Amino acid sequence: MDKVKNYINANKERFLEELFQLIRIPSISSLSEHKEDMIKAAEYYKTKLLEAGADKARVMPTAGNPVVYGEKIIDPNLPTVLVYAHYDVMPVDPVDLWDSPPFEPEIRDGKIYARGADDDKGQGFMHAKAFETLVKTDSLPVNVKFMLEGEEEIGSVSLGAFCRENKEMLKADIIIVSDTGMIAPDIPSITTGLRGLAYWQVEVTGPNRDLHSGLFGGAVANPINVLSKMIASMTDEDNKITIPGFYDDVLEVPEQERKLLNEAPFDEEEYKRAIGVEELSGEKGFTTIERTGIRPSFDVCGIWGGYTGEGAKTVLPSKAYAKISARLVPNQDHEKIAKLFEEHFVKIAPKSVKVKVESLHGGQGYVCPIDLPAYRAAEKAYMDIYGKRPVPTRSGGSIPIISTFESILGIKSILMGFGLESDAIHSPNENYPLENFYKGIETIIRFYMHFADEMKK
Amino acid sequence: MDKVKNYINANKERFLEELFQLIRIPSISSLSEHKEDMIKAAEYYKTKLLEAGADKARVMPTAGNPVVYGEKIIDPNLPTVLVYAHYDVMPVDPVDLWDSPPFEPEIRDGKIYARGADDDKGQGFMHAKAFETLVKTDSLPVNVKFMLEGEEEIGSVSLGAFCRENKEMLKADIIIVSDTGMIAPDIPSITTGLRGLAYWQVEVTGPNRDLHSGLFGGAVANPINVLSKMIASMTDEDNKITIPGFYDDVLEVPEQERKLLNEAPFDEEEYKRAIGVEELSGEKGFTTIERTGIRPSFDVCGIWGGYTGEGAKTVLPSKAYAKISARLVPNQDHEKIAKLFEEHFVKIAPKSVKVKVESLHGGQGYVCPIDLPAYRAAEKAYMDIYGKRPVPTRSGGSIPIISTFESILGIKSILMGFGLESDAIHSPNENYPLENFYKGIETIIRFYMHFADEMKK
Repeated sequence: MDKVKNYINANKERFLEELFQLIRIPSISSLSEHKEDMIKAAEYYKTKLLEAGADKARVMPTAGNPVVYGEKIIDPNLPTVLVYAHYDVMPVDPVDLWDSPPFEPEIRDGKIYARGADDDKGQGFMHAKAFETLVKTDSLPVNVKFMLEGEEEIGSVSLGAFCRENKEMLKADIIIVSDTGMIAPDIPSITTGLRGLAYWQVEVTGPNRDLHSGLFGGAVANPINVLSKMIASMTDEDNKITIPGFYDDVLEVPEQERKLLNEAPFDEEEYKRAIGVEELSGEKGFTTIERTGIRPSFDVCGIWGGYTGEGAKTVLPSKAYAKISARLVPNQDHEKIAKLFEEHFVKIAPKSVKVKVESLHGGQGYVCPIDLPAYRAAEKAYMDIYGKRPVPTRSGGSIPIISTFESILGIKSILMGFGLESDAIHSPNENYPLENFYKGIETIIRFYMHFADEMKK
Repeated sequence: MDKVKNYINANKERFLEELFQLIRIPSISSLSEHKEDMIKAAEYYKTKLLEAGADKARVMPTAGNPVVYGEKIIDPNLPTVLVYAHYDVMPVDPVDLWDSPPFEPEIRDGKIYARGADDDKGQGFMHAKAFETLVKTDSLPVNVKFMLEGEEEIGSVSLGAFCRENKEMLKADIIIVSDTGMIAPDIPSITTGLRGLAYWQVEVTGPNRDLHSGLFGGAVANPINVLSKMIASMTDEDNKITIPGFYDDVLEVPEQERKLLNEAPFDEEEYKRAIGVEELSGEKGFTTIERTGIRPSFDVCGIWGGYTGEGAKTVLPSKAYAKISARLVPNQDHEKIAKLFEEHFVKIAPKSVKVKVESLHGGQGYVCPIDLPAYRAAEKAYMDIYGKRPVPTRSGGSIPIISTFESILGIKSILMGFGLESDAIHSPNENYPLENFYKGIETIIRFYMHFADEMKK
């Protein structure tokens, strides 16, 4: 391992300078005026992959921003790792809240301050430099492929098609991704699950126009009263979701993993204080970590209807609306759940109203079994560098592209995130500690080595 | 009665022309540019009362628009009738939907088309002309007072104070008002009850900011979910209101009156078709007429919270709001109910949220017993002119000033309305059938005569 360490030490400053060059390209995918910056960033990555030792690398067009593809096949019989990252970043508004210009990276207190410093230029570029280190020190034990997209922040709109069209090219044994976080600087973690999502808009219509609440109130169903009852009935007193069949495909998480999950440090008092609530509330029989990680949830994201202006207007409104979402857990199919909800919602509507349900959005959940060779390799890599077994965590959020990889390419992903809560991704003063950048490179290198070993077993 | 009939016949055209002159004054109380028109309309009424034979009549200032007061005291020992009406009208927007200019009255198909044709210039002026007829034919059997306000359409804001300040002057045995409707052109009715009102705005706060519904959903109470449950719990499966004590002061309506109420012609199919609902819904054990007339109701007039824009935004919102109203029946005190709701709402809130309740508005209900001498007099008057006993109806709406008269002056009101559903009050093409105008005058004249008799008994 000495030559690896020596190589990193000798090239430390250059690694950082190269990352800074990448960061200086303002590749904001949601703003069309940055179209050329997207190409620039993609070309830059391609060059860096070739310089690092890739056999080939190219910028491949899609319906949207291009995908950078690169590979080094040392032996077709060896296992292959596919690296996924994204070179696009979020907008920088409000720009006056930044302490230094977002696209001029600056180091303060051991942290890189810039848009993309963490998400995902800082984390993504670690993979390019880990790859370079392995190649240049003749230590690469497996084949490597890179797939770097430019649309992650706008929903990875072209990547599904790209995967479908390049299935053969993208063949691999595992995908590794650094685009998530870790619990704390000294507590490494691996995200082993992501929740899926189903999202509906509902419309409840009572009378065909707003009525005088005095003349009609009490005799005509009020769509807001009705919608409230319908929403209320969707969860019971234990905060279980009452839609028939909703839990049918929910996989119970093995006791051992539940135990590990709950070993993650969690300060309930601090959590409550931070969001300003006196009491937490959720499904009976589960901890807060479990409620957001391994259990589905049911949230009304928005509601509106009737008079919402100033003062008192007496009206029995014609319509009421809500935007309703369910976070799903792995193995729950979002399309099946969408249908179950729709059927149930229509069924429980009283005859005194008409209802419409529209499914607006959906995505599958994802789970990575902790007994996968690649998981074990990642675990060992973290133990080598951090001296601690990483905590398997379940994120309550959704990264739809991860489930897409599984469904289209049939490949699991290992989410080795090195970001911290304090990195302020998507916000002003995004930052990324230098320590995480360099430790990340080392951990990734270790992963390759352990992965080669695990695959031999 | 011949001389009365002859007088009306001889003056028919003039009565109408005088009403037209009143209508031509655009006395819109809600628009400040019509301030002078308010004075003009008041002065016009004063002149007409004096011409009709009032001993005195004057335009009395208030903090807002003036009140026209007039009286004819034929004998202090005789009973006194106080006539209430209003000379202000609603705005005319959207003016392009009118088939003729709103302040140029036009007769088409036997109806007067103009703003105020019914509400309340047409109906109010009938009283001036009935009074004139009685005086000019030497038939006036009781004392008469007039109180005509110019702020009814903006909530009678100054009339409470006017009543308090002029209690002695306004002393009377009964108030008569024509500012409501009748069931159909051939089905006379008297409004014997009005509902009261309580109106609140509630705010439910969950976390101190909008949260990511993926990262927090399932572990933190969602204020929209909670508000929905709270609203849902306020009525049970029989559509009874569950606020403890809510029904304590509700007077059960005597069986005889319930029977009469339900004799009013009511076509449920037509009612449903008109408002576009397949099924009616209301408190178990009561008919539609009873549900809006003699029973309280609970309606959410508005609700809002979270994301209400286009598409799907996943958010666990910080706040949810609702505007909630209850229509009350006579004997329910709106202030007591306001307090009961507030206490209950705070009590049922789970600890995971904070709630605020603000009482925005309230008014007492009103009921006129059908065994009152004045009620019997009105009943007989309608029987004379329409050949039918009028149906006592309970209006679901509220006319707060009527309860104010009762509480400040201690006088009951008889609501002898001659308006029709098709009169389109407050809307473009407001109209009032000539038949109703003239029959109204005759019925009012009959009322005076029967009232004098009833009071002798």
